[in-house]
Amino acid sequence: MPVIFQPRALTPIQHFDELTVDQTFELGDVVISRDAILDFAGTYDPQPFHLDDAAAATSIFGGLVASGMQTISACLGLAVRAGVLGALNLAGSNMDDVRWRRPVRPGDRLSVMWTVLSVAPSITRPDRGTARIRSDVTNQNGEPVLTLSITHVLRR
Amino acid sequence: MPVIFQPRALTPIQHFDELTVDQTFELGDVVISRDAILDFAGTYDPQPFHLDDAAAATSIFGGLVASGMQTISACLGLAVRAGVLGALNLAGSNMDDVRWRRPVRPGDRLSVMWTVLSVAPSITRPDRGTARIRSDVTNQNGEPVLTLSITHVLRR
Repeated sequence: MPVIFQPRALTPIQHFDELTVDQTFELGDVVISRDAILDFAGTYDPQPFHLDDAAAATSIFGGLVASGMQTISACLGLAVRAGVLGALNLAGSNMDDVRWRRPVRPGDRLSVMWTVLSVAPSITRPDRGTARIRSDVTNQNGEPVLTLSITHVLRR
Repeated sequence: MPVIFQPRALTPIQHFDELTVDQTFELGDVVISRDAILDFAGTYDPQPFHLDDAAAATSIFGGLVASGMQTISACLGLAVRAGVLGALNLAGSNMDDVRWRRPVRPGDRLSVMWTVLSVAPSITRPDRGTARIRSDVTNQNGEPVLTLSITHVLRR
């Protein structure tokens, strides 16, 4: 498998009202293999430091690194598998404050924590609401790798 | 090929100082096929409305749609192939103001325009600078699909 997902076994949220501000969820780990880095970059981000060892060695990264979009996507893939939002998630509407803090190298083990930033029922649609959730991603050394916030549209 | 890129033939920027605020670049088109949607979602976003026609039909999208992360990634892949920043791009540091405005369905033709929002030499590193660039993505009907801004770290 190109990307290795190790989600935690979490109890899915059943109802919108169970979400509260400052609630946190440890989602588990994800590892992006070297093959997966090359595969993703070949289609979605064919820059030399994602595809070629020699070129990557002379880049500011000093070696092959994953596309920043792949890191985000892999953390999303982990979140879906951990299943916190269960069947509540209808769509994503916004993503803000994405910060790529450190490069992700082949085999790095990334851990993802979610923190609920805000929860709001829809004013116009009583069957929906939104939740803004921050992801904090750290590597196997406990170093921050990525942070971002996504606003989810949820069933209520 | 799972994602069909049709970049415009653009003259790459050769020097940091060629970038100016409000400069625009038409990058060309990209089409995400049904197979590519299923392939990406299977790894990075395995939610029913990205994987299963019957489940997607009853979702708020009314049919199969691409992962929002895939749409961003495909537009990035187009930008790399169009080659505006040539060899200047050292890394991405931030992404902000991502707005998924409309769903992307199999075969939709997406056009991407870049607008330079700001350009700043580094204060501490005279060989580097940053440029914040907005992407505006529209579909074959001219409807806005996605907007976002990325801050690039550039060679100077």
